[in-house]
Amino acid sequence: MPLLDPVELTLKAPVTKANIEAHVFVCTGASCSGKGSDDILSAFYSILAEKGLLYGKRGSIDGTILVTTCGSVGLCKIGPAVLIYPDGVWYYGVTPQDVPEIIEQHLIKGQPVERLQAFQVG
Amino acid sequence: MPLLDPVELTLKAPVTKANIEAHVFVCTGASCSGKGSDDILSAFYSILAEKGLLYGKRGSIDGTILVTTCGSVGLCKIGPAVLIYPDGVWYYGVTPQDVPEIIEQHLIKGQPVERLQAFQVG
Repeated sequence: MPLLDPVELTLKAPVTKANIEAHVFVCTGASCSGKGSDDILSAFYSILAEKGLLYGKRGSIDGTILVTTCGSVGLCKIGPAVLIYPDGVWYYGVTPQDVPEIIEQHLIKGQPVERLQAFQVG
Repeated sequence: MPLLDPVELTLKAPVTKANIEAHVFVCTGASCSGKGSDDILSAFYSILAEKGLLYGKRGSIDGTILVTTCGSVGLCKIGPAVLIYPDGVWYYGVTPQDVPEIIEQHLIKGQPVERLQAFQVG
């Protein structure tokens, strides 16, 4: 049996009732942070929030995109790294200037930005 | 055009030539860490390495499973949280004792552990 009933689960973790279509991970490991991943994180937060797409405290409960930090994934020499799941697309060498393109082309139109793609999981 | 040619990409980030089938994220946000997420991370590393499934420095280049930390995803009150992509399955209240079951049942047999499942993305 589950650890919590559905009502308790919803009350304690409202995200479990969200309609999350994409989960963006911005690497904040040492190398990526040294190359400005905080600015990339800020760009995702602000642009997605402005478009009403960001889920959570910085966005809204109707948002469909979640943005989270992650530890090193092995792109340390070619970072900053940005991962988009469940698509499994890994981007490298991302700059804050690339973020609008990733949002428009990948997250909204569903077409990964080939130029920045390092890897595909799954 | 891409930022790097395929040879440079492989040399600088060998993970981009790995055959990664699943990416496990263990939340190491403040709440999850306070509830022992480091022990969960260690359990994933050691059991997956023992089975030859772990990719990376702690495992091997033939491993098919990558394990990474992540920041808070909103399961703070019901953590520790473990996310498995590209499946999009989020687990909650995970203990080190649950890790062998998640590995055997979900990562090897492809059947999520329903009892611990909080959410499904995508």
